[in-house]
Amino acid sequence: MSKSINGTGVVAGVAYAPAVWVRPRPDMPQPGASIAEDARDSEFERFQQAAEVVAGRLQERAAEADGHAKEVLDATAGMVKDRGWHKAVKKNIAGGHNAEYAVVGATDKFVAMFESAGGVMAERTTDLRDVRDRVIAELRGEEEPGLPHIDGEAILLADDLAPADTATLDTTHVKALVTELGGPTSHTAIIARQLDIPCIVAAGKSLREIDSSTVIFVDGALGTITTGADETEARQAVADYKVRAEKIAQWTGPAHTKDGHAIQVLANVADGNAARLAAQSQAEGIGLYRTELSFLSANSEPSVDEQAKVYGKVFDAFPDSKVVVRTLDAGSDKPISYATLDDEENPALGVRGLRIARDNESLLTRQLDAIAQAASQRSDDAQTWVMAPMVATSTEAQWFAELCRERGLVPGAMVEVPAAALMADTIMPHLDFVSIGTNDLTQYTMAADRLSPQLAYLTDPWQPAVLRLIQHTCIGGADNNVPVGVCGEAAADPLLACVLVGLGVNSLSAASTAIAGVGAQLAEVTLEQCQEMAEAAIYSPGAPEARTAVRALLDGYNS
Amino acid sequence: MSKSINGTGVVAGVAYAPAVWVRPRPDMPQPGASIAEDARDSEFERFQQAAEVVAGRLQERAAEADGHAKEVLDATAGMVKDRGWHKAVKKNIAGGHNAEYAVVGATDKFVAMFESAGGVMAERTTDLRDVRDRVIAELRGEEEPGLPHIDGEAILLADDLAPADTATLDTTHVKALVTELGGPTSHTAIIARQLDIPCIVAAGKSLREIDSSTVIFVDGALGTITTGADETEARQAVADYKVRAEKIAQWTGPAHTKDGHAIQVLANVADGNAARLAAQSQAEGIGLYRTELSFLSANSEPSVDEQAKVYGKVFDAFPDSKVVVRTLDAGSDKPISYATLDDEENPALGVRGLRIARDNESLLTRQLDAIAQAASQRSDDAQTWVMAPMVATSTEAQWFAELCRERGLVPGAMVEVPAAALMADTIMPHLDFVSIGTNDLTQYTMAADRLSPQLAYLTDPWQPAVLRLIQHTCIGGADNNVPVGVCGEAAADPLLACVLVGLGVNSLSAASTAIAGVGAQLAEVTLEQCQEMAEAAIYSPGAPEARTAVRALLDGYNS
Repeated sequence: MSKSINGTGVVAGVAYAPAVWVRPRPDMPQPGASIAEDARDSEFERFQQAAEVVAGRLQERAAEADGHAKEVLDATAGMVKDRGWHKAVKKNIAGGHNAEYAVVGATDKFVAMFESAGGVMAERTTDLRDVRDRVIAELRGEEEPGLPHIDGEAILLADDLAPADTATLDTTHVKALVTELGGPTSHTAIIARQLDIPCIVAAGKSLREIDSSTVIFVDGALGTITTGADETEARQAVADYKVRAEKIAQWTGPAHTKDGHAIQVLANVADGNAARLAAQSQAEGIGLYRTELSFLSANSEPSVDEQAKVYGKVFDAFPDSKVVVRTLDAGSDKPISYATLDDEENPALGVRGLRIARDNESLLTRQLDAIAQAASQRSDDAQTWVMAPMVATSTEAQWFAELCRERGLVPGAMVEVPAAALMADTIMPHLDFVSIGTNDLTQYTMAADRLSPQLAYLTDPWQPAVLRLIQHTCIGGADNNVPVGVCGEAAADPLLACVLVGLGVNSLSAASTAIAGVGAQLAEVTLEQCQEMAEAAIYSPGAPEARTAVRALLDGYNS
Repeated sequence: MSKSINGTGVVAGVAYAPAVWVRPRPDMPQPGASIAEDARDSEFERFQQAAEVVAGRLQERAAEADGHAKEVLDATAGMVKDRGWHKAVKKNIAGGHNAEYAVVGATDKFVAMFESAGGVMAERTTDLRDVRDRVIAELRGEEEPGLPHIDGEAILLADDLAPADTATLDTTHVKALVTELGGPTSHTAIIARQLDIPCIVAAGKSLREIDSSTVIFVDGALGTITTGADETEARQAVADYKVRAEKIAQWTGPAHTKDGHAIQVLANVADGNAARLAAQSQAEGIGLYRTELSFLSANSEPSVDEQAKVYGKVFDAFPDSKVVVRTLDAGSDKPISYATLDDEENPALGVRGLRIARDNESLLTRQLDAIAQAASQRSDDAQTWVMAPMVATSTEAQWFAELCRERGLVPGAMVEVPAAALMADTIMPHLDFVSIGTNDLTQYTMAADRLSPQLAYLTDPWQPAVLRLIQHTCIGGADNNVPVGVCGEAAADPLLACVLVGLGVNSLSAASTAIAGVGAQLAEVTLEQCQEMAEAAIYSPGAPEARTAVRALLDGYNS
């Protein structure tokens, strides 16, 4: 009989393979009792033997690997045998430390050296720490930490994955990632998106009940991990998904439903580099340009000219298209030294986004001046839209809109505070567009921190409560002829994208890698089917039920 | 021409009088350069002269006062002349400190002595610090801090009021309080409620534009501070309000509208003492018993028997009535050592309320066992209802309800997470009642910390967005035959109470002092008028507009 665990699916796709647990990093050794002087030589020998064993294992893996993975493994093995590092360990042991603690000290020294060298050397510090952990585990007789050796196919299970764990991830072996903790923006989720393999995070403690080598079926869209699944059905589902993956590869845009209802698909970016990458995708423009990310490390506010130059780099990537600029969303998890308050009890509920400008209007007007200056260099076809984060009332919307119109900019607002969705009828008349930020909207609607791993079951964009607010916003938009976009994680989920279109959303903005998946999915359904899926989702009692109901409808349309 | 500033009204009532600014406390002196040995005698003389002036002023005020105020002022004057304190100051000056810093050191010493003495002595430390501040200001040639001397009537204006400022507040002189900062739960708001004088908090920086002695009109229900008001109209409004105050004094309950629509009015309590006080009011029972407040200082979980004893004290105050018990609402601003997580980035959006029980169900079931045990001692007529805080989904509601029903308890939920209101149709079928917590519901709906003074303009229970969620909850309640109560600050505002009744709320629970005001107001309006006021409020663009529209309707009914 099959049994399922629910997590939060962050990358769509299905996989069927044995589970393999990633072994945790060892606890860091503390300085122990001093090693007697006559025992220090044998202590260093103990270290040398452990290093030998670790290097041997890495070389063995390198011999079986090829290409980049082989290089990485060989280089890591070389690091284990590095004479300078051995010398540093020896010196520490000569000072009376045991081998485990000596390894920590020697590694810290090398990490500091590599970091001050910068560049490529600095990037090696992750490997150095990995080597340290492997040798410490060997010295203690513990299992080697990190990614185990994988024969054949596997689905990786972990509490959470560190960057080092994923450096040599090979998708010919690793078919999916599942973590107990983490959230949609955790490192694991990012890596899975890059590798394009199914990924589920925040599966909770029940995940530990699955032992390594148990064969499991995971569905990254549904967020389910199933043991005891029927093998024939599971293999069929994997084969079906491959067909879908091909359709995605072939999709070229622009996006519309099967019956020709157009949906604008746009990219989320934070700087000129990301914008240039997005320009190579099927994105029709930029739906969310997060301006604050360029200023996180600035100690003082950049001048209007300096800002205009930064914005210009993003505009240049889409010379004739729509670019939606979000004004500074400082505060909360993105503090900016010259703009945000310190020591708020609940920064996510604090003076953030547009609220900062309430007592500091010129900070906002200087940014609008800079956006207007950069926009004046664009072609006549280009559209420059500007939206404010954290708008909660029509008074705020009106105030922001006036400041934009004075500068010839097209004003809009993020809908991410529940009040903005609930009061859409009073806010819309002041604006030319809105964009729904599903991540924050979900956080506030569910009263659950979007970064809390314990609350990932609540901060699921499939929550019908959130979908109802989106519907309410779309009705307000349609009544006032104001287009409604979505620019949160929700827009990257092909299945949820159908629901959003059914609710009345006019454009979707997501990471540029997600756009083809969304576009290919929309091409297979009619607007009426989207509306039917939306109806099913908002009348479901919870997020898992909504996802299951919509998936069942979609399967019905395709069969 | 009249001009108004908007703040957050926290105690209803109107006043018309000259503004008087409370002067701020002086900055604390830092150790300065050492005083030359031959200058130390004259430095001590400088202190003695300053103390003389301060004592003289206090004695002058005492001569004009009588009763308790005279005693307080005389005692404070005596403290300024205390020989022990003078000796301590002299000793510090002999050590080379200047008079200002010597006063700080001497005061700290006496505060520590008084505190270790405990009891009545410990209560005098507030006066000691007051004396210190007055003498330091005099030494510096600054104006004396704190409450100024008031001739005739006045409306006090301050950034925020400290307990010391309000110790001798005399309502024959002070007609209202207005603060630039603060919120509905600030000290100023609490004192104003006790004194029953109109109070507005969070009026913002514009308040500073009003100078002392400018005659102003304040309306604590509307939250407006008006300069340049027509004197005749203003005096009429004050006279009208006096009539209303008499009606409140005469109201005896139970509460119903003019046309006989019954509304249950209940009291919010945190322990047996408060419950006994509430039993002397017109409260028909307890609408919110906050169980966590008895356990804030506990280091370990009390046993079931210990808990049952605590709950029993509250039940005893209302032997035959309804008592609504809220299970532990630990976390956020009410951390309980044995129950809550440390170091959450946003505790208000964290693992709090019912969520704590998700990984620790027995903590909840032990509390339910204790409630059931205490309830089994009650009379057959008594109703013991139990509700969970922070319910967000129907799955949570169902789980909690089952645990209650297994123990013969009547299950309900707080509606304070926006999702619970939005999903009322799916949550109600599992429950026997709900109670809307407007404070948290407002905080999440507006994405604004309820304790942030900078965001008080957003965390106003008159926000139409919040009222719409209340309406949605009432519709869900009516459809499922589940009664809906309100137990936040909103239920204490007589004007807003009319709106809540119009939205379909069945019971109101508030501080017991607020009940008569609410009951007397409801007795003057029909249910249909309440519905009209509710309609006007939810279609207003913002909180100030909603308040003004409803007030205008009410004035129309009365004229």
